[in-house]
Amino acid sequence: MLKKNVETFLGCDADYDEARLVIFGAPFDSTTSYRPGARFASRVMRAESYGLETYSPYQNLDVTDYKIFDGGDLELCFGDTELALGDITRLAEKILGDEKIPVMLGGEHLVTLGAIRAAVKKFPTLAVIHFDAHADLRDDYLGAKLSHATVMRRTYDLVGDGKIFQFGIRSGDRAEFLFAENHTRLKKFDFGGLEKVCAEVGGLPIYLTIDLDVLDPAVFPGTGTPEAGGVNFLQLLHAALKVIRSCDVVALDLVELSPPYDPSGISTATALKILREILLALSSK
Amino acid sequence: MLKKNVETFLGCDADYDEARLVIFGAPFDSTTSYRPGARFASRVMRAESYGLETYSPYQNLDVTDYKIFDGGDLELCFGDTELALGDITRLAEKILGDEKIPVMLGGEHLVTLGAIRAAVKKFPTLAVIHFDAHADLRDDYLGAKLSHATVMRRTYDLVGDGKIFQFGIRSGDRAEFLFAENHTRLKKFDFGGLEKVCAEVGGLPIYLTIDLDVLDPAVFPGTGTPEAGGVNFLQLLHAALKVIRSCDVVALDLVELSPPYDPSGISTATALKILREILLALSSK
Amino acid sequence: MLKKNVETFLGCDADYDEARLVIFGAPFDSTTSYRPGARFASRVMRAESYGLETYSPYQNLDVTDYKIFDGGDLELCFGDTELALGDITRLAEKILGDEKIPVMLGGEHLVTLGAIRAAVKKFPTLAVIHFDAHADLRDDYLGAKLSHATVMRRTYDLVGDGKIFQFGIRSGDRAEFLFAENHTRLKKFDFGGLEKVCAEVGGLPIYLTIDLDVLDPAVFPGTGTPEAGGVNFLQLLHAALKVIRSCDVVALDLVELSPPYDPSGISTATALKILREILLALSSK
Amino acid sequence: MLKKNVETFLGCDADYDEARLVIFGAPFDSTTSYRPGARFASRVMRAESYGLETYSPYQNLDVTDYKIFDGGDLELCFGDTELALGDITRLAEKILGDEKIPVMLGGEHLVTLGAIRAAVKKFPTLAVIHFDAHADLRDDYLGAKLSHATVMRRTYDLVGDGKIFQFGIRSGDRAEFLFAENHTRLKKFDFGGLEKVCAEVGGLPIYLTIDLDVLDPAVFPGTGTPEAGGVNFLQLLHAALKVIRSCDVVALDLVELSPPYDPSGISTATALKILREILLALSSK
Amino acid sequence: MLKKNVETFLGCDADYDEARLVIFGAPFDSTTSYRPGARFASRVMRAESYGLETYSPYQNLDVTDYKIFDGGDLELCFGDTELALGDITRLAEKILGDEKIPVMLGGEHLVTLGAIRAAVKKFPTLAVIHFDAHADLRDDYLGAKLSHATVMRRTYDLVGDGKIFQFGIRSGDRAEFLFAENHTRLKKFDFGGLEKVCAEVGGLPIYLTIDLDVLDPAVFPGTGTPEAGGVNFLQLLHAALKVIRSCDVVALDLVELSPPYDPSGISTATALKILREILLALSSK
Amino acid sequence: MLKKNVETFLGCDADYDEARLVIFGAPFDSTTSYRPGARFASRVMRAESYGLETYSPYQNLDVTDYKIFDGGDLELCFGDTELALGDITRLAEKILGDEKIPVMLGGEHLVTLGAIRAAVKKFPTLAVIHFDAHADLRDDYLGAKLSHATVMRRTYDLVGDGKIFQFGIRSGDRAEFLFAENHTRLKKFDFGGLEKVCAEVGGLPIYLTIDLDVLDPAVFPGTGTPEAGGVNFLQLLHAALKVIRSCDVVALDLVELSPPYDPSGISTATALKILREILLALSSK
Repeated sequence: MLKKNVETFLGCDADYDEARLVIFGAPFDSTTSYRPGARFASRVMRAESYGLETYSPYQNLDVTDYKIFDGGDLELCFGDTELALGDITRLAEKILGDEKIPVMLGGEHLVTLGAIRAAVKKFPTLAVIHFDAHADLRDDYLGAKLSHATVMRRTYDLVGDGKIFQFGIRSGDRAEFLFAENHTRLKKFDFGGLEKVCAEVGGLPIYLTIDLDVLDPAVFPGTGTPEAGGVNFLQLLHAALKVIRSCDVVALDLVELSPPYDPSGISTATALKILREILLALSSK
Repeated sequence: MLKKNVETFLGCDADYDEARLVIFGAPFDSTTSYRPGARFASRVMRAESYGLETYSPYQNLDVTDYKIFDGGDLELCFGDTELALGDITRLAEKILGDEKIPVMLGGEHLVTLGAIRAAVKKFPTLAVIHFDAHADLRDDYLGAKLSHATVMRRTYDLVGDGKIFQFGIRSGDRAEFLFAENHTRLKKFDFGGLEKVCAEVGGLPIYLTIDLDVLDPAVFPGTGTPEAGGVNFLQLLHAALKVIRSCDVVALDLVELSPPYDPSGISTATALKILREILLALSSK
Repeated sequence: MLKKNVETFLGCDADYDEARLVIFGAPFDSTTSYRPGARFASRVMRAESYGLETYSPYQNLDVTDYKIFDGGDLELCFGDTELALGDITRLAEKILGDEKIPVMLGGEHLVTLGAIRAAVKKFPTLAVIHFDAHADLRDDYLGAKLSHATVMRRTYDLVGDGKIFQFGIRSGDRAEFLFAENHTRLKKFDFGGLEKVCAEVGGLPIYLTIDLDVLDPAVFPGTGTPEAGGVNFLQLLHAALKVIRSCDVVALDLVELSPPYDPSGISTATALKILREILLALSSK
Repeated sequence: MLKKNVETFLGCDADYDEARLVIFGAPFDSTTSYRPGARFASRVMRAESYGLETYSPYQNLDVTDYKIFDGGDLELCFGDTELALGDITRLAEKILGDEKIPVMLGGEHLVTLGAIRAAVKKFPTLAVIHFDAHADLRDDYLGAKLSHATVMRRTYDLVGDGKIFQFGIRSGDRAEFLFAENHTRLKKFDFGGLEKVCAEVGGLPIYLTIDLDVLDPAVFPGTGTPEAGGVNFLQLLHAALKVIRSCDVVALDLVELSPPYDPSGISTATALKILREILLALSSK
Repeated sequence: MLKKNVETFLGCDADYDEARLVIFGAPFDSTTSYRPGARFASRVMRAESYGLETYSPYQNLDVTDYKIFDGGDLELCFGDTELALGDITRLAEKILGDEKIPVMLGGEHLVTLGAIRAAVKKFPTLAVIHFDAHADLRDDYLGAKLSHATVMRRTYDLVGDGKIFQFGIRSGDRAEFLFAENHTRLKKFDFGGLEKVCAEVGGLPIYLTIDLDVLDPAVFPGTGTPEAGGVNFLQLLHAALKVIRSCDVVALDLVELSPPYDPSGISTATALKILREILLALSSK
Repeated sequence: MLKKNVETFLGCDADYDEARLVIFGAPFDSTTSYRPGARFASRVMRAESYGLETYSPYQNLDVTDYKIFDGGDLELCFGDTELALGDITRLAEKILGDEKIPVMLGGEHLVTLGAIRAAVKKFPTLAVIHFDAHADLRDDYLGAKLSHATVMRRTYDLVGDGKIFQFGIRSGDRAEFLFAENHTRLKKFDFGGLEKVCAEVGGLPIYLTIDLDVLDPAVFPGTGTPEAGGVNFLQLLHAALKVIRSCDVVALDLVELSPPYDPSGISTATALKILREILLALSSK
């Protein structure tokens, strides 16, 4: 008898019970104010992963040697933000409750809030390491409290002063940078000081959120709001591996890939390679 | 002294006070579940109108002979649907209150609800003539009551039985078609019976809403949910002119152009020509 | 416990055992001489089917009311044509052996030969109804006997004189049209005479192969070799339903959708609607 | 010894001396005011002709049976219009002087003026049959006398009253349509009356200029200024064959294909098929 | 009463009288010999500026704190180069005459000549700092004296020996590089020696012309003639700020963005960020 | 009498007999498993070379000063790999037999095998220098021995242990990297050690094969399988010049440009510039 068509990120075909890492997609971009499309990211990443090797020459590790589960994409409501965030939170709670690590693929950056709500509930001392081109610290955006542009501010409401560590930031309004001076740790433009931060937060549970637009638009054109002057692939790779290897990462996400703005597919290919390396670093720990 | 850069739909450069027709854009597509992009329609239409003649060989009329005001686009909140609809309603009320005819450029189809709320307040006997590929009669969509897929149902909640006249419909779930049998007048696939409907509703104030995906995807590929088997340009043109000439149209809209799915620009060019003909028909009445 | 990610054509989520129709993809375009890309068709159709309703207003039927199985895509070898065809034949034999109807999604037109080899083995009197812009009757193409341009000639080698019925043909070299005069029944440009053919072949098992480029490029631009002057959507829809309703269709395929040449997505949407209608017509018989 | 790479429109590989038809490209679009790109048309047509059969099922004729020469593209100056037109005129004069028929591939429509200057010099009674969406009868355009929008007016200056026959026109300003009433014969929207015109001009030498945007944008999206409501492929095909078969065509052109606006390539494919049929009709006369 | 739709580059909504900087667009690319499209740059930059913050983390300055006027785009004649240049010169003269700094957005590089003609009239000792991939020093191009490829040669005709300083040049014919050896100061490939040049020209009025193709195609793919091996964003940013801060810049331009070759939009986003930083550096001086 | 249209890579218009370098295209991508399109590379490179200068500021040399012959493209069979490779081998043998250097433009990487078969026959001690992102050392791929993914393994079968020198490799399965440890010299990620290798192989005839995906996707997005983390343009340029200047290069190729994934054209432009520099370095030796 033939079997149904199962589609997973490359090599991630473990059953849920045996897996320590759980991938899921959060295809939502309803608050994106400028160029939508991040909703397609997880679907396209899964399809395009066919072109990626499971073996990493960077870490000399292979995805097929580990147990990783891919649960596919949530079906999220467009137009009712709280409804969508609720669905994300419920799934993240289930995964965390089963002592597994959720690896969420956005969607726009607001989906991070759904997962952080779950993580902070289980880990009240949660700290957040945040790679991004944008500060995302607005208090509201065009009147909305829940927005891709406010997600780190809402996260701040949950985790409080000194618990958010931001790197690569090169865009925001003046008020956001002022807010950061008093309430978060923000490194402009690059990953300077990351090593020190990792040492400091060693004892805390860490949520790692990677807005892929931290990358330079040259290598990552497929995103809603490209910002010239970003980091390159190897810089992001090394920064992510640094965090995973030296901190207690309990959950993470990759957000803001927008495939419609990526006709050559290099942004998706780059996101996939970052994801592969992250999965390997987490699995081999 | 140099003047600021004013951008309007071609030839529509009257002042507000002297105009009878008022164009405005409603760049919102936050509830679009499939392929977003309608948010860009009004902006792109205004820019591309440079390639269109003001003169119509169909009606032997010229836009420059009439007073039409173009107020530009609303700045709408993404992610909070009621907030966005409220802004649309307020502007439509202002225009209707000044005894002018609002001509709204979407955006997704849900923006129509914002304008109809204003129209039904001023004209309690309002009837709605609806050209579309989709019935849009769902009661909710993925849990949301306000959605592009529910807009005619919400309109029904406002205008009641027998006041919605639907043409060209070729997509929906079974429940929508059953609902239509009892509560609206729905003609599948084409404009058959339009003349009779126009005669019937002659005495009522009419809101005309044109979802441009009623057109065949061949001539109108740039839309969120293309449905093969639609009407052609001339059929839509004649249907729209028929309604305008024989009914008391108090407000209208053109929705669901999605420029990102229109690399050749023919969808935008077609939408512009329909708009030009509508403006001329309304103005010369 | 969470379940793995199953992706099927919309609503086709029956188990294999209970299904009468079995969908599978044959992502192969290795012999395409001009513009490759048909290899992506089945994958893209499955993904984009999310935008299609399960209900048909044409037939007043719903896909969710029937048991249809979608087995996903074969993994076919590029560069070794016989290897790829062998895999297709084996799967089609399995499905036919289980008394089910294979519904194959190409890929280029050569994949049809793989399925016909299976069908003619089980049904030695098999006749073939062929909708296409191209005759595909060359004896070889640039030295290759197995090619998208020779598929009907190779089919002829299997089924013999007078068993191939071709419609819509508007491209080929002179020799192909001469061959057709003596060995197949070929109607140029449209479906004229289809009704008569259906009556004639009533008693025979029928393989229906639909090269979607029989459609006019206006509505179906996304194909390897677009040929102006084709049929429209409704003509193809009615022709396909005519064959299914009046003949004993034992297997069928849809081929030559090439998504990379379809930036607006209307070709995929049209192919999906044809597929939905075919599934409904076969299921409700 | 290996030979240099010769590239010609399919099958048109005769030497100049033996050919009766001479193809050349005029890659110029410097006056295009809206969307440039027609400069690429002849080059892309030549490259894409690889995907076209030499045999026509419409006329049962084959290009390989006739002697046609393809001289490649002129290298024209951008930014100095008279310089470019002069080069076109000189080449057309050479071809006409050798008693051959020039078949020019644009480029924007202004290139027609270069060829007509040559034709009217050799044939002082020249009449012009003009298929187009646009009247092109402006006297100047943004201050320029030489423009794609003035080409028929400049032609009028050369051939005079009653010698220009325009079909398919559906765009222009009011003054152009008024000018046409007095000075040309203009049929709006379609080819109505073409048969009668062909009868009338039977004795005159004819220049046939086909602006391909006379076609509906559905089948011909790749053009600078698409105008909804055009003719379809078969209507244009039959009109062109009618003129060629019943008139004394001494020169012709195909203009305004703009490949950058044609990502699917259907416009180029359609232009190529029209060209093939024209070459066959002229050759077999 | 509603106001007309005013569209400006982000935050640049001062009235003309109060502004020190005056932005205007010169949408002209008629002499572009290879890939046209720069005509769309100013329009697209204005529209896309919606996605850019007004605040710069590089300079800790905000556009909204300064008075900048955006006059929109000139309507330039295509096909008559001198006519177009004349319109540019007249506007630049007006702005310079009012003791303001013109900031011109191209268009192809030839538009620079229009502005330099005005600048050299007011400032007879004008020197020109030129960032570009191309030398643009040809004496004529395909017979035309006025061309994007000759613009620095025509500028040389106006300002004379030793007054043009070229940086980043990596393309040209041999004669251009020989000409530069004797008549301009040309640094190949990068900005080496810029600091020294700025010191030297300290006393002179400076026209700064930035052909954005000086950037590497990786970060700036959307240009007519991309040349591998360019500078990166930060290098250009620092070079531009260096000139503005240490020289007396009396006029400047940004040219050769070609949005049609920039489907991801990163070129436009990069151009906008350069423009923002330039406006801030000029304003805060 | 007019001459036929000859199209060559820029400036390469020598006759075969007088040329030392012979360019030809091998438009084949039939085994490409992921994203086809490399078949179009040579054709597009030839057409786009119009936008490139013949003069190199890197080497101060000009293509027009040398005798280079461009033979156009082979017409290769799709779907029968051995047939295609045979055609390539025959042409390469002819060129090598005439004591000329073949410069082959792919196509996918498998075409290299065709040329190496010819080279190794003439030069039994042939060594291969290989720039690539991928190891290409699989023994078979989806059952096929001849594949883009096995080309260096098949080359190994011909040249044996220690004769293949691989640089820039950053993708492959584990077995490939293990194979390389024992049988080839493989440098991961970059060109480290190239100088030493050049010294070592000084006495041997060298085949240089450049898979352009060794470049970072930022500057070379147009390829079938983009791999983040590659070398930049100048690194590749200097590595190629190093090999040509210090080794006895008897044949070379550039493969895996895939124009359909390069909408901005920067990949083609970069490939052209690499080709120009290689032709100049070889010619001036």
